[in-house]
Amino acid sequence: MRKVTILGAGLVGSVLSILLRKRGYEVDIYERRADLRTAAIGAGRSINLAMSTRGWKALELAGLRAEIEKIAIPMPGRFLHQEDGTSAFQAYGKNGEAIYSVSRGELNKKLMDLAEQNGVRIHFNQACTKVDIPQNTIELKAEDGSTQSIKCDLLFGADGAFSALRTHMSYQDRTDFQQFYINSGYKELCIPPDAAGNFQMEKNALHIWPRHNYMMIGLPNNDGSFTCTLFFPFEGSPSFDSVKTKEEVMAFFKEQFPDAVPLMPTLLEDYTQNPVSSLITTKIYPWSHKDQSCLIGDAAHAIVPFYGQGMNAGFEDCSVLDELMEQYGTDWATILPEFQKSRKPNADAVAELALKNFIEMRDKVADPKFLERKKIEKDLGVRYAGVFNSVYEMVSFSHTPYAYAMGAMEAQDWLLQEIMQQGDYFSNIETAAFKTTLDELLAAYAARVKEL
Amino acid sequence: MRKVTILGAGLVGSVLSILLRKRGYEVDIYERRADLRTAAIGAGRSINLAMSTRGWKALELAGLRAEIEKIAIPMPGRFLHQEDGTSAFQAYGKNGEAIYSVSRGELNKKLMDLAEQNGVRIHFNQACTKVDIPQNTIELKAEDGSTQSIKCDLLFGADGAFSALRTHMSYQDRTDFQQFYINSGYKELCIPPDAAGNFQMEKNALHIWPRHNYMMIGLPNNDGSFTCTLFFPFEGSPSFDSVKTKEEVMAFFKEQFPDAVPLMPTLLEDYTQNPVSSLITTKIYPWSHKDQSCLIGDAAHAIVPFYGQGMNAGFEDCSVLDELMEQYGTDWATILPEFQKSRKPNADAVAELALKNFIEMRDKVADPKFLERKKIEKDLGVRYAGVFNSVYEMVSFSHTPYAYAMGAMEAQDWLLQEIMQQGDYFSNIETAAFKTTLDELLAAYAARVKEL
Repeated sequence: MRKVTILGAGLVGSVLSILLRKRGYEVDIYERRADLRTAAIGAGRSINLAMSTRGWKALELAGLRAEIEKIAIPMPGRFLHQEDGTSAFQAYGKNGEAIYSVSRGELNKKLMDLAEQNGVRIHFNQACTKVDIPQNTIELKAEDGSTQSIKCDLLFGADGAFSALRTHMSYQDRTDFQQFYINSGYKELCIPPDAAGNFQMEKNALHIWPRHNYMMIGLPNNDGSFTCTLFFPFEGSPSFDSVKTKEEVMAFFKEQFPDAVPLMPTLLEDYTQNPVSSLITTKIYPWSHKDQSCLIGDAAHAIVPFYGQGMNAGFEDCSVLDELMEQYGTDWATILPEFQKSRKPNADAVAELALKNFIEMRDKVADPKFLERKKIEKDLGVRYAGVFNSVYEMVSFSHTPYAYAMGAMEAQDWLLQEIMQQGDYFSNIETAAFKTTLDELLAAYAARVKEL
Repeated sequence: MRKVTILGAGLVGSVLSILLRKRGYEVDIYERRADLRTAAIGAGRSINLAMSTRGWKALELAGLRAEIEKIAIPMPGRFLHQEDGTSAFQAYGKNGEAIYSVSRGELNKKLMDLAEQNGVRIHFNQACTKVDIPQNTIELKAEDGSTQSIKCDLLFGADGAFSALRTHMSYQDRTDFQQFYINSGYKELCIPPDAAGNFQMEKNALHIWPRHNYMMIGLPNNDGSFTCTLFFPFEGSPSFDSVKTKEEVMAFFKEQFPDAVPLMPTLLEDYTQNPVSSLITTKIYPWSHKDQSCLIGDAAHAIVPFYGQGMNAGFEDCSVLDELMEQYGTDWATILPEFQKSRKPNADAVAELALKNFIEMRDKVADPKFLERKKIEKDLGVRYAGVFNSVYEMVSFSHTPYAYAMGAMEAQDWLLQEIMQQGDYFSNIETAAFKTTLDELLAAYAARVKEL
């Protein structure tokens, strides 16, 4: 049995280590940071996680689903705080399906505990400074400056969007690589619990304040607070560049988020002290080198957070790899090429879906026409069950490959445009002529997606 | 006056150093390789260079045009060696304009001589291993393993497609970067002079053997030889992967390049011993950091060689930078942002033009319909002088911005398609009705390109 080395004890690295231990591999993880279970540090990026179906599957494989369900807060829909002061709840699924707000830190701690209980050795404060890809050796630098070089047998890079393994893989001949940033960054803000410790807004929802080219979102935490995130252009007006002083911040929030301001006692402090972070997308190919090393999760495909699929996609990588181990045993010369071949189109698709969903969340959900479309989609899902599923449902509540969901999105854009040209849907839906037209359109849609 | 440090004593680094010296800057160049004027080494990539108008301009600014003209071989057109054994000469311009075959090594040596004569200090065997972008310090490693760290005042990275400055700039927040390889690689081959020392084929031409998804080209050298390059897929059939043994090589060449085989006495030796190299395109943005550092040439925009514009684009970078120094004096906080802003769209355009020209050279020039189009283009250029110039002429024989040429290409694709739908051009060209139609189409074309 080969010995496995994993770079990164984050979410994906921890889950991967557990799945490998369950199949009998000896596993060592080298983690750049200190142990977040004992050190007084943050868990890295702090945007809350939205766990959905793909994520749950990997947790189930790892044996942690029940425990995480206890601390996860279901969010069955979006709670929209519109510009005009009105608000609306928009269910995500037709059967009350939810995505779940989970604390990244808590989840990571439990995963590390479970990994160690399964016999994984996690080495903290070990930054990987170099990888010799052909030799499969890594150089590690400890906090005290001491270094060591390790010859790996089978190496995984689960070391995130700025992966050391990926960087060195990108220097290999005929390796394509791309990184790009969007023009918006984000800043974390907070809505604390009220004096009695209760949630100040609807607990079971993902709150969104859509404001066209920017937005604020809020996700519930178990302590009664909401972690809010302002996604805002770096430059222009308004932007992080134009809204800086306490006066500017207060004027801007009072104008744009009047319902939130009274709930945010530390707004000025949070806004002026918390950093602005950027949002990167990365793509690389190939992901692996021979039967020696392979990227997984963000290291292979870092995406923007707007579909809540970053962790879910990384966990799905783990599930798929587990299936390949089931199928091909210890034949890593087959497993790694199969893994990258099957995952790459899906990683590209979820990257694209995530970028598009920023537009949807910040802009379209404020548009009455779009809200009408969402209602029609929901009705179609019931009326043509088995034929029509919304893209959101495919992505968040199924294991449908992301690439298929991406293709279905285009087919649905066509379908809904056609339907909405036929006049008011809900006025006409019971007429025979409209139903015939609808049947024909849905048959054409079904034929299109069948080819995906 | 600020002190300038340049990474790389290649073509662009040398020209840049001369232009900066002429404006009074103190200049030090650090070059990874040994001095190619004294060491018995190749000059790096050995595909011959095709110098065209943009390249000549920078050489003129540097004061080296007359000297290089003496060793440059004019190639006023393509000499096509078709699959059916026929051959054809295709002029590049309507007035006999030529691109010029120049030896990369000879050109580089002369440029380094001139740089040193102007007071530039070139330090050889100094590999840049790290750049601290905010601090503007570089770490250099000499051949003997000794290292030094230098605090730079104004730093340029002219260190090519695998630039150390670019690598470290790509780690900066909000820096977009991309690299990709095409599916073909290349191998250098040779057609030596005959026993009397004469050229074995037409001297004044760029020879092409177009074979659809691959091709061989040949450029003349001053010693009577041609440097040949086979551009060939890495995988598939035929490919570098499928044509390997001496038997396979000979069978393949005899079938595909029967006219060349008798001229290539060292074919088997060259093919089996010379390496297969890959072809990368790179894009990055921004190119500069504050008024401190800037990428130039291949370091900023490595492209594939199929339009013969790699060096020409790098030299044009130098000319443009020189104009900005003329305009803004020593205000580098203005010069560097203006430089990247004006050059980036043109760098992207020439990257695209170069990729498209591979298709044209290897595939389209073997197509009678395409050859007909080329003839019509030439006639239009004469008939509508001042209105119609072929894209090839814009790129190779003018200073028209590459981005404009790219836009004009799309307009010309439309125009020529329209014209060729009107029936046989050369049969109809003297009829009044056809002339009227042509006038109208050219007016529409002129309106389109005016908006570019």
